[in-house]
Amino acid sequence: MDIVEKRLQDLGIELPKPPTAVANYLPYVKTGDLLYVSGTLAMKAGEMSHTGKVGETQSVESGYEAARNCALNTLSIVKDAIGSLEGVVRCVFLGGYVNAIEGFAESPLVINGASDLFVEIFGEAGRHSRAAVAVSGLPKNSTVEIQCVFEV
Amino acid sequence: MDIVEKRLQDLGIELPKPPTAVANYLPYVKTGDLLYVSGTLAMKAGEMSHTGKVGETQSVESGYEAARNCALNTLSIVKDAIGSLEGVVRCVFLGGYVNAIEGFAESPLVINGASDLFVEIFGEAGRHSRAAVAVSGLPKNSTVEIQCVFEV
Amino acid sequence: MDIVEKRLQDLGIELPKPPTAVANYLPYVKTGDLLYVSGTLAMKAGEMSHTGKVGETQSVESGYEAARNCALNTLSIVKDAIGSLEGVVRCVFLGGYVNAIEGFAESPLVINGASDLFVEIFGEAGRHSRAAVAVSGLPKNSTVEIQCVFEV
Repeated sequence: MDIVEKRLQDLGIELPKPPTAVANYLPYVKTGDLLYVSGTLAMKAGEMSHTGKVGETQSVESGYEAARNCALNTLSIVKDAIGSLEGVVRCVFLGGYVNAIEGFAESPLVINGASDLFVEIFGEAGRHSRAAVAVSGLPKNSTVEIQCVFEV
Repeated sequence: MDIVEKRLQDLGIELPKPPTAVANYLPYVKTGDLLYVSGTLAMKAGEMSHTGKVGETQSVESGYEAARNCALNTLSIVKDAIGSLEGVVRCVFLGGYVNAIEGFAESPLVINGASDLFVEIFGEAGRHSRAAVAVSGLPKNSTVEIQCVFEV
Repeated sequence: MDIVEKRLQDLGIELPKPPTAVANYLPYVKTGDLLYVSGTLAMKAGEMSHTGKVGETQSVESGYEAARNCALNTLSIVKDAIGSLEGVVRCVFLGGYVNAIEGFAESPLVINGASDLFVEIFGEAGRHSRAAVAVSGLPKNSTVEIQCVFEV
């Protein structure tokens, strides 16, 4: 068993099935050594796990869980794309969008739910550059959306 | 006549003139095999075609048309950058921003206006990774803005 | 003294210390020839210089200054990453997020504060592709956030 799979098992994490695109696009595109992964939503077992805005129906804490679920979906796409998570050289960039009330200033704390997972699983290779913003709406009313670029 | 130009002609599509940047930036930058295209707006024949928010002055359907116009402007920049659309190896990534009311959850349906056009024109090479979000405002009050990365 | 450092000096610009990441991510990641720089905020000397929304507590003009401060922080990260700003081949892409009131349409004028600085300092190599949008909230209530990709 490879190291990354072992870490997933040690953490008690089972990757979800890769989500299917919700419209006319692909879950990922590989160009050169870069794997662009499409935006993923807060879904678990094929259902939305977190909908609505942080500051209304969601807290920073539940938003963190939403971001973690996005990251699990992203990883399931990466595994599907390249066969094994061992093939990840580096998480390069994470764009994090938080569905939040006007003026929300804590998007970094929410998006940490995704960032922490990548670091737990990949160690140093999981540490990435990032931008986090609060937006007025997300697909399927998801609480969080993340969009990532990996070096593979 | 090349295949892509023929497809454009068959679809009755005439590319607009490439839009000029609305501020101190370039319409595109090429780095290695990647062509980064600046955000394009819902413009036609040099005028804004769709302004205001989806959910107020625009519907999902008219937003779809706005996204298609953005995509036509993006393609005109790509053609200007590399001489011929035949030079497109792949549409890698499309970032779609929808100017919409608070809590808008249907940005994928709007951004499909751009995605569908790329697939119509390039076929499999036009299928891309994507992220779609709703934002509180866009340049010139455009209804949609898209930002793309191509492999050329 | 290298050309870029001389230009900084001629402009009376002293780069700030590179900002530390406000959460579990890195200030930058290099992959191949691309340097992804994390989102930077409107900070000066370690303190927020501009908070709140353009259209409320900030004007387009003060937003422009906020964007310039973001850009200075970005440059300090670039210098830290590659040792000298001489190593910048090209500013490839700038994603600009403006914390603004609903329907704000002037994000290009605000983000020019960052774009103008890059052109002042790097000349032609500082000209970049760009997307500017208005969002409902930014980390630490910053007025502007920019996220850049450089070729180094």
